[in-house]
Amino acid sequence: MPATRYDVIGIGNAIVDVLVHTGDDFLNSEGLIKGAMSLVDAERSADLYSKCGPAIECSGGSAANTIAALASLGSTSAYIGKVRDDQLGTVFGHDIRALGIDFDTAPASDGPATATCLVLVTDDAERTMQTYLGACVGLGPEDIDEDYISAADVTYMEGYLWDPEAAKEAFLKAAKIAHRFDRQVSLSLSDPFCVDRHRDEFRDLVKNHVDILFANEEEIMSLYQVENFDTALQAVREDCKIAALTRSEKGSVVVAGDEVHVVDAEPVEKVVDTTGAGDAYAAGFLHGLTKGHDLAVAARMGGIASAEVIAHMGARPEVSLAELLSQRLG
Amino acid sequence: MPATRYDVIGIGNAIVDVLVHTGDDFLNSEGLIKGAMSLVDAERSADLYSKCGPAIECSGGSAANTIAALASLGSTSAYIGKVRDDQLGTVFGHDIRALGIDFDTAPASDGPATATCLVLVTDDAERTMQTYLGACVGLGPEDIDEDYISAADVTYMEGYLWDPEAAKEAFLKAAKIAHRFDRQVSLSLSDPFCVDRHRDEFRDLVKNHVDILFANEEEIMSLYQVENFDTALQAVREDCKIAALTRSEKGSVVVAGDEVHVVDAEPVEKVVDTTGAGDAYAAGFLHGLTKGHDLAVAARMGGIASAEVIAHMGARPEVSLAELLSQRLG
Repeated sequence: MPATRYDVIGIGNAIVDVLVHTGDDFLNSEGLIKGAMSLVDAERSADLYSKCGPAIECSGGSAANTIAALASLGSTSAYIGKVRDDQLGTVFGHDIRALGIDFDTAPASDGPATATCLVLVTDDAERTMQTYLGACVGLGPEDIDEDYISAADVTYMEGYLWDPEAAKEAFLKAAKIAHRFDRQVSLSLSDPFCVDRHRDEFRDLVKNHVDILFANEEEIMSLYQVENFDTALQAVREDCKIAALTRSEKGSVVVAGDEVHVVDAEPVEKVVDTTGAGDAYAAGFLHGLTKGHDLAVAARMGGIASAEVIAHMGARPEVSLAELLSQRLG
Repeated sequence: MPATRYDVIGIGNAIVDVLVHTGDDFLNSEGLIKGAMSLVDAERSADLYSKCGPAIECSGGSAANTIAALASLGSTSAYIGKVRDDQLGTVFGHDIRALGIDFDTAPASDGPATATCLVLVTDDAERTMQTYLGACVGLGPEDIDEDYISAADVTYMEGYLWDPEAAKEAFLKAAKIAHRFDRQVSLSLSDPFCVDRHRDEFRDLVKNHVDILFANEEEIMSLYQVENFDTALQAVREDCKIAALTRSEKGSVVVAGDEVHVVDAEPVEKVVDTTGAGDAYAAGFLHGLTKGHDLAVAARMGGIASAEVIAHMGARPEVSLAELLSQRLG
């Protein structure tokens, strides 16, 4: 049973990131698509790792990063995701609980290891990700507890959940519970290749199950298979109650029925690692929304959170985002 | 069989560091001695970890850090240390091999997990370390291979090896092989509390087995139980062929028979985390020595390596130390 009411509950692939600096040469020689997240099996993951330089390990996972940023913003939150009962599973659980986030999903006691994502960061701050889903394939509807979903204003899920088979059912079960309790359902499209893999299902989701959609420019254009941003904007406006569309240095566009906001990006001194930019934006936006701010302010909060995360290595904030917000917004 | 001749082979406790930012309050409430390395059992390690904030994991271990810095300086090197065949053992092995270091010690297939060191970094850049030795207790004389020791100009060992029981024998076996093949034996005293734990044995070692000694001011004063640095300097001069004594911002003093050098510290813009300062100094010094430089230049190289490592989080260099040396020394 949850001990409290939550602003947001996140559901996602529980992943430990393995961060390595690398060059374009390596991406080319391994045939990796720069900027994308690709799924790899255990063998390929181990092969790539063996060819990489020294790494640092830290907790990741798209929705988990969002929940971590929400905690830093002062929102109350919980997380659902599947690790194994191994060392990296312990690391994942520690890091998320240490932020005051409720995380009670039972770890798998056998089967594949805790998921890892090999994050190859190049000098241009782009990240190329190779994900071994591992224990994430074990997340299923049995991990979705009505008491937790109904306790949260927003149930937030990542598109990547569509990759492991059983998680789709978990996603739909959570969405149905949320709506039954008059809560909101939010989805991030995760990445353009993920949209490619699941386009028809994502279109159905966006039209029929999602209240608040997060997508970047490439993702939303891929969803509707259109050639320019504005066409995608008009399409999503028909499908979704609220869509927050991020455009890197161009800022973000939020559309909600007749309401449209075009919000500039926050200044960043030096972009170091773009991993987690979208995750942090979603956190800032949802924080604003659940705290009763209007959409333009929520978008600005998303931009501030995102700017913090891309200014350093790693996908989770290094400073208190709550303090940062009060400095920037007064 | 080693594939090459080595400049240095390191023997130490193979440890994965768990780095966390924390405050003095936490150290006080847990009764931790600031700046020291304490040994903890699995239970206490897990208890402290559960009370800490989010962490990042990266390979550590004192002698392993030295060997990693030597690789960055362009020395050829190997490492002997014991991990388990678990996820953190894989991380340790990956990171050291990725630097081109030979590491062929068989991992334990049962028993305690790979060692971890909870490194609590406070705002003043001090690190307080809680080490769970785990699989390190399995390192023994059977892991010391004559072919490797005889292939290295210097066999470098950390004082921390005196903590797990069987490693002492490994240490002495390695020292004897090295001397039989006319190689040099080097020891780092590791930390003043380690010296306290093993003072009599360390004095015997320094007098009878060690050619090149590394110690900081506190450690060398603790070894001889004297109240000031100069008294310790005179004592070690009698006992050891070469002693390199580090004094933080006061630089280092090298004594070798009649030869004495007092070398200033290198400038550092901002000290962020002193973890690994002594490890990096030893690497720079041994690099200089094995490449035929005189003692004053070797001490300067130690200072340059050390200055790089304390300017960021983590105990291993983030840039090529070989390039840094050529910039600084021309």
